[in-house]
Amino acid sequence: MNRKIITIFIIALFCFIIVLAAARSFFLKPSDRPPKVTAIPEGEYDPAVWGKRYPLEYASFQKNLEMSASPTEFGGSVKFQHSLRQPEMLTNFKGNAFSTDYTEDRGHPYALTDLKESKRITEKSPGACMTCKTAQIAGIFKDSGWAYAKKPLSELFTRAHYSIGCANCHNPSTMELRVTNPAFVEAMNRRGVDVTKAGREEMRSYVCGQCHAEYYFEPGSSRVIMPWDKGLHPEQIYAYYSQKPGGFEGDWVQPDSSTMMLKAQHPDFEVHSTGTHARAGISCADCHMPYMRDGGRKYSSHRVTSPMKTTGASCRRCHPEDEKMLLERVRNTQKSVWELQHIAGARIARAHEAIAKALAAKTVNKEELEKARESLRRAQWYWDFVAAENSMGFHNPALCLNILGQAIDLAHRSAESAAKAASASR
Amino acid sequence: MNRKIITIFIIALFCFIIVLAAARSFFLKPSDRPPKVTAIPEGEYDPAVWGKRYPLEYASFQKNLEMSASPTEFGGSVKFQHSLRQPEMLTNFKGNAFSTDYTEDRGHPYALTDLKESKRITEKSPGACMTCKTAQIAGIFKDSGWAYAKKPLSELFTRAHYSIGCANCHNPSTMELRVTNPAFVEAMNRRGVDVTKAGREEMRSYVCGQCHAEYYFEPGSSRVIMPWDKGLHPEQIYAYYSQKPGGFEGDWVQPDSSTMMLKAQHPDFEVHSTGTHARAGISCADCHMPYMRDGGRKYSSHRVTSPMKTTGASCRRCHPEDEKMLLERVRNTQKSVWELQHIAGARIARAHEAIAKALAAKTVNKEELEKARESLRRAQWYWDFVAAENSMGFHNPALCLNILGQAIDLAHRSAESAAKAASASR
Repeated sequence: MNRKIITIFIIALFCFIIVLAAARSFFLKPSDRPPKVTAIPEGEYDPAVWGKRYPLEYASFQKNLEMSASPTEFGGSVKFQHSLRQPEMLTNFKGNAFSTDYTEDRGHPYALTDLKESKRITEKSPGACMTCKTAQIAGIFKDSGWAYAKKPLSELFTRAHYSIGCANCHNPSTMELRVTNPAFVEAMNRRGVDVTKAGREEMRSYVCGQCHAEYYFEPGSSRVIMPWDKGLHPEQIYAYYSQKPGGFEGDWVQPDSSTMMLKAQHPDFEVHSTGTHARAGISCADCHMPYMRDGGRKYSSHRVTSPMKTTGASCRRCHPEDEKMLLERVRNTQKSVWELQHIAGARIARAHEAIAKALAAKTVNKEELEKARESLRRAQWYWDFVAAENSMGFHNPALCLNILGQAIDLAHRSAESAAKAASASR
Repeated sequence: MNRKIITIFIIALFCFIIVLAAARSFFLKPSDRPPKVTAIPEGEYDPAVWGKRYPLEYASFQKNLEMSASPTEFGGSVKFQHSLRQPEMLTNFKGNAFSTDYTEDRGHPYALTDLKESKRITEKSPGACMTCKTAQIAGIFKDSGWAYAKKPLSELFTRAHYSIGCANCHNPSTMELRVTNPAFVEAMNRRGVDVTKAGREEMRSYVCGQCHAEYYFEPGSSRVIMPWDKGLHPEQIYAYYSQKPGGFEGDWVQPDSSTMMLKAQHPDFEVHSTGTHARAGISCADCHMPYMRDGGRKYSSHRVTSPMKTTGASCRRCHPEDEKMLLERVRNTQKSVWELQHIAGARIARAHEAIAKALAAKTVNKEELEKARESLRRAQWYWDFVAAENSMGFHNPALCLNILGQAIDLAHRSAESAAKAASASR
């Protein structure tokens, strides 16, 4: 009989626990449950409206308004002029708008404001500049196709009211991930990848990569093109550009060296894709939008910033080391990259000056001059590929340090060729 | 009654399994159990004698006789002249015995033979060269203290019959790990570490680090000294050498540039100690002497070679990725390092030539010449620190790529200063 009593007691205890858990879920935290709202229609770009249905995601998205540096001192979302720390940029980008104004990016909600206020924007700026600055890009492209890219940017400003937000990456009715930048869809297509058929894990990188990537504007049409036809490595992209695709010769001529240069644009996707984390199947969102819990509910953080601010959720689910050690490791790597980046940038600035000096000479050895320019152009491309990228090399340390080492070598060789070119006049 | 029968059957089955397991352990594999032999006396250096007591360790130690390359193509134990792949070494080490003969190391059992056969050895070679080539070093040091270091090496050859073996790292009676190279004990002491009181985990790196480290011979006494008083980073070691400790000005004068140079000696311990694996508490032995099993018995592999040959036991206990992916990652890192190492080495060779040219000029700007020499000396130190190390940068990729980038920069600056120095004669 005793055994029967124990059995009944155990069964009763189980029932009690199950009922308690169910009650907790249904009654104790009702405020966290998504309120019943109507489905979000296509064309709704206000994140506050999406936020009513997804309050946890929205609350974390709103944290993008906070600006703070990364604990490793590299990266983060504080707006500052890069040339203050790297005065060599004033020479290297001379003649390009980046020498006038090159601030660190703030969070996604600021993208549209920062575009409006940027001194890089002129009356001539094309609508293509809007591609990655507004949640409304899907609607804009649906209405006018690539024609929007050639319109004056000022015209686009009258239509675009919302900065980067939910609609850039989500189908409003199903909430499935989607890529809205047509340039990314096309570039991946040329690489044999149908983005519309990608799995969820790929999409968790593609939605970020659609904008955090290198691109150029096609001459004439201003259509946005990602230069990946030969591959994602900076050497392969340089080879692509060297073919002058569609008549694109470069971004601008640096006036000291009179050399046609390329400006790299935050190639985070390219650098990450060729790195260890990507090879291990880790997506951008795994680290930058880690899973969080609030009142027992799991959600993806939509505060997109340095994972160094959330190492517990971002890193330590795979790397069980303590936070201090993780930060120290990342800091060491970034410091190694920063040192070479700074050396490379300074040597490239000197190469511009060396070529300027050669151009001022009475007679110039043209062959050596062209060698100097080619080395300079490649050096600056490698350097800028790292400098414009947002991880200070962390996304792929071996690649970044390698191409910075090559950039240092190329910059010196450029100055040397320039000196040879100039000595022809003696 | 049925329940009773089932209970009895289950108990009987358990007993049967336990008896079977015990029988298997006692009778089925008797050959693997250590035979009863007398304890090993201090002064026994023949690994075959130790092997009778530790057959599994000895069998793995004997595999050091096999020579094979690492699957990543960098590292391994195949003897080849480094200058075949890096002809720049012939210039950079000109005037030093390493330009005559610089072969990749074979396994520990070959150390003594390879020392005897090395073209780097001359009649003047001091006994100090024997320090890391024989298991007998403990006895040699016990008998004559540092006096052995100054004796002719030929005299030491008459005493040392056994190559690197068990006694270098083990106390024969307790089998505890021990450091027998007095230079390591002294250097660590100066850094505040009492090696005789180190824990087992530290010892699993110290026994390797006692020889796989940078050192120099004190002028006069030929005493072996590890230059770690300022730290283990190549910049700190360079600063130490720059103070000319005990009158040590450098290893040799490169005749083209007439510059006093430093020769780096396999600084594996220094590079590893400042890297990620060391920070995570991983010892040399964890990867290079992984735990193995044979017939249910666990032992440390004493085949000390590239862990890329044993990724299952060496890497995958912490890194569960598949072997192909692991090898690809290591290969990528090593390839990045190799590329910069080759560029740096070639630019350093050119700097030697540029200084030689300056020296041949009628008049020379001495200040610029000294700048050229200082840059060259530091560049070659950084380059050789990586080139002489055995992991092709893997032990600490960020450090190795960073100092190679600096070496490239310094080598170019050296050549530039040399050109300036020479132009004074115009």
